[in-house]
Amino acid sequence: MRIGTSLLWTVFLSSFFLGAQYQVEKWDVFELQLNGKKEGNPFTEVQLTGKFYHRQDTVTVSGFYDGDGSYKLRFMPHKEGTWRYITESNDTQLHRQKGMFQCIPPKSGNHGPVAVKGTFHFAYADGKPFYPLGTTAYGWIQQKRETREKTLESLKKSPFNKIRVALLPHAPSGMDYDLYPYEGKVKDWDFTRFNVDYFARYERYIKEMQKLDIQVDLFVFHPYDKGVWGFDTMNKKEQYLYLKYVNARFGAFRNIWWSMANEFDLMLERTTEDWDGYFRFFQENDPYNRLRSIHNAANWYDHSKPWVTHVSAQSEAWWKSTTLRDTFKKPVLFDEFCYEGNGDNRTVALNGDMIRHRFWLMTILGAYATHGEAFQQKDTGFQFFRQGGNFEGSSAQELHVLKKVLNNIPGHLKPLGTDWRLNWIRAGVDKTYYLYYFGEYQNSSWTFMELPENLKYQADIIDTKTGTIVKQERTFGKGDKLDLPRKPYMAVVLRLAAQ
Amino acid sequence: MRIGTSLLWTVFLSSFFLGAQYQVEKWDVFELQLNGKKEGNPFTEVQLTGKFYHRQDTVTVSGFYDGDGSYKLRFMPHKEGTWRYITESNDTQLHRQKGMFQCIPPKSGNHGPVAVKGTFHFAYADGKPFYPLGTTAYGWIQQKRETREKTLESLKKSPFNKIRVALLPHAPSGMDYDLYPYEGKVKDWDFTRFNVDYFARYERYIKEMQKLDIQVDLFVFHPYDKGVWGFDTMNKKEQYLYLKYVNARFGAFRNIWWSMANEFDLMLERTTEDWDGYFRFFQENDPYNRLRSIHNAANWYDHSKPWVTHVSAQSEAWWKSTTLRDTFKKPVLFDEFCYEGNGDNRTVALNGDMIRHRFWLMTILGAYATHGEAFQQKDTGFQFFRQGGNFEGSSAQELHVLKKVLNNIPGHLKPLGTDWRLNWIRAGVDKTYYLYYFGEYQNSSWTFMELPENLKYQADIIDTKTGTIVKQERTFGKGDKLDLPRKPYMAVVLRLAAQ
Repeated sequence: MRIGTSLLWTVFLSSFFLGAQYQVEKWDVFELQLNGKKEGNPFTEVQLTGKFYHRQDTVTVSGFYDGDGSYKLRFMPHKEGTWRYITESNDTQLHRQKGMFQCIPPKSGNHGPVAVKGTFHFAYADGKPFYPLGTTAYGWIQQKRETREKTLESLKKSPFNKIRVALLPHAPSGMDYDLYPYEGKVKDWDFTRFNVDYFARYERYIKEMQKLDIQVDLFVFHPYDKGVWGFDTMNKKEQYLYLKYVNARFGAFRNIWWSMANEFDLMLERTTEDWDGYFRFFQENDPYNRLRSIHNAANWYDHSKPWVTHVSAQSEAWWKSTTLRDTFKKPVLFDEFCYEGNGDNRTVALNGDMIRHRFWLMTILGAYATHGEAFQQKDTGFQFFRQGGNFEGSSAQELHVLKKVLNNIPGHLKPLGTDWRLNWIRAGVDKTYYLYYFGEYQNSSWTFMELPENLKYQADIIDTKTGTIVKQERTFGKGDKLDLPRKPYMAVVLRLAAQ
Repeated sequence: MRIGTSLLWTVFLSSFFLGAQYQVEKWDVFELQLNGKKEGNPFTEVQLTGKFYHRQDTVTVSGFYDGDGSYKLRFMPHKEGTWRYITESNDTQLHRQKGMFQCIPPKSGNHGPVAVKGTFHFAYADGKPFYPLGTTAYGWIQQKRETREKTLESLKKSPFNKIRVALLPHAPSGMDYDLYPYEGKVKDWDFTRFNVDYFARYERYIKEMQKLDIQVDLFVFHPYDKGVWGFDTMNKKEQYLYLKYVNARFGAFRNIWWSMANEFDLMLERTTEDWDGYFRFFQENDPYNRLRSIHNAANWYDHSKPWVTHVSAQSEAWWKSTTLRDTFKKPVLFDEFCYEGNGDNRTVALNGDMIRHRFWLMTILGAYATHGEAFQQKDTGFQFFRQGGNFEGSSAQELHVLKKVLNNIPGHLKPLGTDWRLNWIRAGVDKTYYLYYFGEYQNSSWTFMELPENLKYQADIIDTKTGTIVKQERTFGKGDKLDLPRKPYMAVVLRLAAQ
């Protein structure tokens, strides 16, 4: 038995040699590396699982083959204290390997995985609210190094905390053609032999994104292959071999979300039963119960099915938030409501003001918006939503102030109003916090008739376009009038003052 | 018997003195003036009706007292040829007066009254489609002469063909205080004695607007009086005396529409039965069956009632057009979706781009929008939606190109798509005409995949903001790509070309 050196940040080798226990931060990854057989096809012939024990808890995880005789088991502990494990395999070298490690408290910045909280919202495992503020870059991890590093740099400077990413090769343009997910060659793949380097690269960037506190909404299938590489020609058995491999390699990373597909309904050859099956695979085999969704083009998958954790909609109809919430009783993400750009198609031709405006509207309506940018970058011709690279639009930058606002909300926003007339201007948290958004309206003032009796609030006026926040000197109660600058796109935050 | 001189344009006096028959244009007004008793209260004591005969048709109309012993009967003939009439009254001077006149064909520009056509639309009596493009000036006819003349001039230069007007005194500011609808004084009116000058002034402007081809959507009640003049304190009998007078004086003008009230639901003391009653009064007593509606603030009157001819909604939710159409199966007017301005309240603080944009969206969605402007005018402080005067915003001017487009549609637009995703970009008339609107999307092109097979269309690209129309040299068919200027707010008109 040997501890993998590639995941040094999880296991302290020094402790090992000193006879102390391995220490793994709660919600980080414990990785066990074992050597086994190289002969035949280790991907299909060798079964490996591990059982992890902590008092009454037992968690079973699948291992995977990482090439060159190396097998790995990855495990994310969710409780502090001593964990023991034992492996099980049809390869005697891998069978009944035992050990233990110590799960220590999470360090600052590690809030654990994100899950659904309170029907319509998300929170990290430690209770901190998670307000998705996502972007989109389907194929960026498949690009040449320079583009990948540039993308990472762009994400680092951006306000985004979630990204929609394709796992199978996406747009041909700009791809690093040396690296494919399978052995073989274009349109003649061996779907029983994974190219471990392809997956290792994804791991590297999943971890990089974890450092940036970015959730990775990873879609495992997509309809964009037709006639290009042939990765959409796996048979059903191969599809499940793939899912099993993906689950075993990536499932332990706390920032992973599973999306069954992008625009699933464009994969005409797959049936509802196929999609049900993929969902159920993750539901049954992912021990961490990571978030699960499916993303549509024009038609809907029935989001009321129990294995769907949240709505991941393609729709411009931001005003349907209420309908979607009421229908599915799940968090609503408008994961594609058109991208910022000036492309040939209106889905890639929304101006930056409207992108930013819809983010604020959806926030007030109790839903979440996802950004995407389709401008062709000057140096490469790449589009961020396809290849990553640089943001060239205005909205990515302008959304920083929304992130700042979201990060300072004391709980989860509840929309306060109907979608019929005026009232969707406002959301709040109990009586302690209110967020108003005036959008296209350039009021000269707002009189707070809708506030609770006898409570006073501190007020900030926010220009959502410029990011300017102006704190007000005095406090405001019911019936008080706040002067506004007669400009569109203003927001107001009210915070309960010391009374 | 004496022919009124105040309506010279309807009756040719010269013909009269020569012994020829009076001639009245079809859909114009024949007015009979009679002298009767002055004593007592002619408004309540004298009953006068006229029966007008044309072959099998008989139309009964009410007369009204116009002061100084003068009584009038107004009648709009809807068929050409000879009409004969006979009066009936409890005043012998007014009883059994007989006569005839000749109804001649309408002159150019006289298309008759507007009625509902084809469930969701309107047309003039001669079949010409009527696309409402309305504005709002509740109290303009109550202002001093200078403001009235200025308003008329503004309307003349505007694209609007409909206006929402209050009949009872509206905003105090700027009013001509010498002229009230009743005898008496503020808060102490004699609701049995009308001030005929007040009504005569309305007539004058109703006729002026008819010359400008503007429909007058006249609301007979409103909730803005509370504590100001007391016109909202009529008892039920007085309310119906008022409605009878209004119907008799104004009903014959072909550009009159009846609205029961503005923001009816703010008149808390009136019940649904009251509103039903007013509707039914017009339904039973207006021989021309003029359009009837009611306008809400926050709550709805049941628009499925048979006497409601169309929806006159206050709502910002332009995207609910589909819902409103499907629910009520009547034409949908968004008669107040917020006004252009920068006032203290967001209902009077929408910027001009958004006003214009919503007009185009509603057009594509098969509904109709109504303009209103709330900027305080530099010279007077008046707001157009209250007192009239000058338009100071941008949308009134920018809507000229929409009017131009609407006037050139060969029929009634049908929305072509759902409200769910992308498809509400387009409306059309059979296979002969299509209107696309790209709104906030700044596409570089549009490829016409949705056109019928084997037909070619002429294309105009319209910048809805600047009003520029660029005709395309070549024609376009299914699959052809039209280059667009990568700017928001573009529209495209396609017209079936000679094949």
